[in-house]
Amino acid sequence: MSEIRRDYVKNRWVSVSANLALKPKDFPVMKVENLSVPAGFCPFCPGNESATPPEVLSFKKEGAGPDNKGWLVRVIPNKFSAFALEGELVEQQTGLYRFCNGLGKHEVIIETPEHDLDFHELDLTQMERIISAFKKRYNALAQDERIKYIQIYKNHGLFAGASLGHSHSQIIGFPFTPGENDGLPQYYKERGSCLICDLLQQEQDSGVRTVHEGEHFVALCPYASRFSYECWVVPRRHTEHFGQLTAAEEKELAWFCKRITTAIVHALDNPSCNFVINTAPVNSPYEPGYHWYMEFTPRLLVAAGVEVATGVYINPVAPEDAAPLLKENWGK
Amino acid sequence: MSEIRRDYVKNRWVSVSANLALKPKDFPVMKVENLSVPAGFCPFCPGNESATPPEVLSFKKEGAGPDNKGWLVRVIPNKFSAFALEGELVEQQTGLYRFCNGLGKHEVIIETPEHDLDFHELDLTQMERIISAFKKRYNALAQDERIKYIQIYKNHGLFAGASLGHSHSQIIGFPFTPGENDGLPQYYKERGSCLICDLLQQEQDSGVRTVHEGEHFVALCPYASRFSYECWVVPRRHTEHFGQLTAAEEKELAWFCKRITTAIVHALDNPSCNFVINTAPVNSPYEPGYHWYMEFTPRLLVAAGVEVATGVYINPVAPEDAAPLLKENWGK
Repeated sequence: MSEIRRDYVKNRWVSVSANLALKPKDFPVMKVENLSVPAGFCPFCPGNESATPPEVLSFKKEGAGPDNKGWLVRVIPNKFSAFALEGELVEQQTGLYRFCNGLGKHEVIIETPEHDLDFHELDLTQMERIISAFKKRYNALAQDERIKYIQIYKNHGLFAGASLGHSHSQIIGFPFTPGENDGLPQYYKERGSCLICDLLQQEQDSGVRTVHEGEHFVALCPYASRFSYECWVVPRRHTEHFGQLTAAEEKELAWFCKRITTAIVHALDNPSCNFVINTAPVNSPYEPGYHWYMEFTPRLLVAAGVEVATGVYINPVAPEDAAPLLKENWGK
Repeated sequence: MSEIRRDYVKNRWVSVSANLALKPKDFPVMKVENLSVPAGFCPFCPGNESATPPEVLSFKKEGAGPDNKGWLVRVIPNKFSAFALEGELVEQQTGLYRFCNGLGKHEVIIETPEHDLDFHELDLTQMERIISAFKKRYNALAQDERIKYIQIYKNHGLFAGASLGHSHSQIIGFPFTPGENDGLPQYYKERGSCLICDLLQQEQDSGVRTVHEGEHFVALCPYASRFSYECWVVPRRHTEHFGQLTAAEEKELAWFCKRITTAIVHALDNPSCNFVINTAPVNSPYEPGYHWYMEFTPRLLVAAGVEVATGVYINPVAPEDAAPLLKENWGK
């Protein structure tokens, strides 16, 4: 059965084709182990701190100094940033064309001092440090009124856009709201309730797409998945901003991150994968209806011409088939 | 200098960073030659016609029969289609979720009988046959009132979504309009003129992003390029539908296709690449302002977490730098 499903968050159609039913091993994209990552000098390894801009945050062993060995998680400005948090946003026009200066902030979270550990291999304490670093940087960037949207994301493997092997994630503060989650305030305006809360309820009632239900979070494969084996972690508590995470939620989110990434590695033979954190705009006029959530996207297919042109994704694995596989590999 | 530019066609922001200035050889994505394409049985090779559904169109040598050796270009239904042109479009709702049946049509254009020829290596007569096949199938699909949008596209290389080595392109008839080009009728409504005509004028006046000016078409690197070295071929004549191509335009478009793909192969060492044809919706209420054009997108970077999450592309090569390189390689 092939269906075209509506994604109400992104206001898009997605083609979901259970009949194509690609098995995990049928995908053409190479697994992370089989990709050559440029070896040699790694600017993210301990001892090479001077190769990066000075850190803006770090968790470290007792007695360790800044920008020196002994750190456990280290956050630095992205050396090759397209953005600079300088001056004010100036919009200009040249004939037909409108542009503004690249106002913003781009940072890198080095997730571990150990070069050879993949994200899913990090222990729970380390995961908690990473989530804590995300939250601290989110809240720090939100203090700057020029920043309107904060995107946290990770690229693992070449087919997910990673160019360095050493495990890291990134955070960008944009001077505008990209608008990809505009479906959320729109739904609230129309129905007076939160789309994410409502769909969480429906998913728990049906159970066919849920992967794991925790105390604070639920993992599920979303109805209109753009990517095969896409999985969301949704906070049960209606919270607009990622930065509103409580200590108990931080702890459980770290546990979910470890479980999901491990399940993906086992079920799909370590594919390239992203995670992204979708959240509410900051320093913007208040609109109700946002509810932050985290999205894990294995990258088993490349967005082809049809996706580039139309924005309509053709996904050969229905989330009803993806959820059982991830469940089966949960806790491995 | 880093800028955030507005794409008025797609109503998106793009970050364009001339200061990062990646050279063609600096991109991490592998070139087509270095990617292993599964060898073995090819369903697109002459003699294997029975491995595919019966052809819907072909150009053949004199005396050759259908679904048999002797064809020069062959169009077949996609065997693994997510779409079927059967019955009517039925929209349904399950709780929160809205979906419809996968009504539509998905076809494959096998561009040459020769397995080992890349698209840019085909001769001009062959290119003309391909463009002619595109036009014929576009106009044939447009006859079916259930089809609302027709997308023609090509995936070359693994990083552009190709899974078979034998050169081919694809055409999908969608039962809805994806809306990626909504900026065009919107601009017309606001200003009473065509955005593509207006920007063509501005580009020709400035010349900094034009690659080649022909009698019927202009090749240019668009102001808000999402992809590094992205290049558009824009018809000078204000034409809404690709299917309205005249015989003279067909001929010149074939020539442009050969020149651009050859320039991309030379300038960028045969990268993965798509082309897509953006056109007006069909069988839909008339809206003025559409103007079809063709988009060539080298895939030197993978859409990473930030693009997946926000839809904002970070492009390290300004089109003002891309155009001179493609110009330099024009006619090679």
